[in-house]
Amino acid sequence: MPSSLINDLTFQVTPIGRIVSPIRDRISAPKQGYEGSPVAWLHLSESMRPALADLQPGDEIIVLTWLDRSDRSVLSVHPRGDRTKPLKGVFSTRSPSRPNPIGLHRVRIRAIVDTVRLEVDNLEAFDGTPIIDIKPVLTDVADA
Amino acid sequence: MPSSLINDLTFQVTPIGRIVSPIRDRISAPKQGYEGSPVAWLHLSESMRPALADLQPGDEIIVLTWLDRSDRSVLSVHPRGDRTKPLKGVFSTRSPSRPNPIGLHRVRIRAIVDTVRLEVDNLEAFDGTPIIDIKPVLTDVADA
Repeated sequence: MPSSLINDLTFQVTPIGRIVSPIRDRISAPKQGYEGSPVAWLHLSESMRPALADLQPGDEIIVLTWLDRSDRSVLSVHPRGDRTKPLKGVFSTRSPSRPNPIGLHRVRIRAIVDTVRLEVDNLEAFDGTPIIDIKPVLTDVADA
Repeated sequence: MPSSLINDLTFQVTPIGRIVSPIRDRISAPKQGYEGSPVAWLHLSESMRPALADLQPGDEIIVLTWLDRSDRSVLSVHPRGDRTKPLKGVFSTRSPSRPNPIGLHRVRIRAIVDTVRLEVDNLEAFDGTPIIDIKPVLTDVADA
């Protein structure tokens, strides 16, 4: 396939909700989720209610976000922002700066309020970050 | 936050490449990756070369795709298409039909040809499916 065909199309991502988090800036943001990220909330759109109906407290889920403050032109980064480390291609890192700035967060649901508001642990994302998908963590072939 | 604010914005996803796979239709497609998916290829755009530079054969990666044949209006599904099972909210399933039809595939790189073509195992996606991101599977805090 000629590479000229690859970028003919773009697709529209529509947020399904927003992150509510105490993280407001890069200084307070941990580099990865396992370095002590705070509890956060997922506030989902009312229109998503049927899609959320079967989530339960205790479930592990994958939250996909759109990291809307990222630089999409970046293809190489110093890992974890450390300029003493050599540049690395972004597809070998979890850098938020990348061509399509999708964040992937594996979290556990702590509580659910009125179906559309989910309290989760271990989520690193700026307050207000758009949520674009939620998926179960699959552990069993019969799961989904 | 009023839900009217949630969907004010949409974002543009630009494919970075395409899946090359023997799966052409729903009949030949397995329902999940662990049910015997074939070897497939990731053909990435030439412009992505710097972002791919540090991937190695043997690496486990997460490939995000845009499942462009999906129905985005679907919020509930019969799991695995089995109508004897009760409807389930799509965010508790891996159904390709969902508001933002992003596919998440954990695969291992078998071979790399000229940086931009990656042979991977265990990938279930239709031939031609757009690739939108690649992330490392993180196993070590020093990884990325």
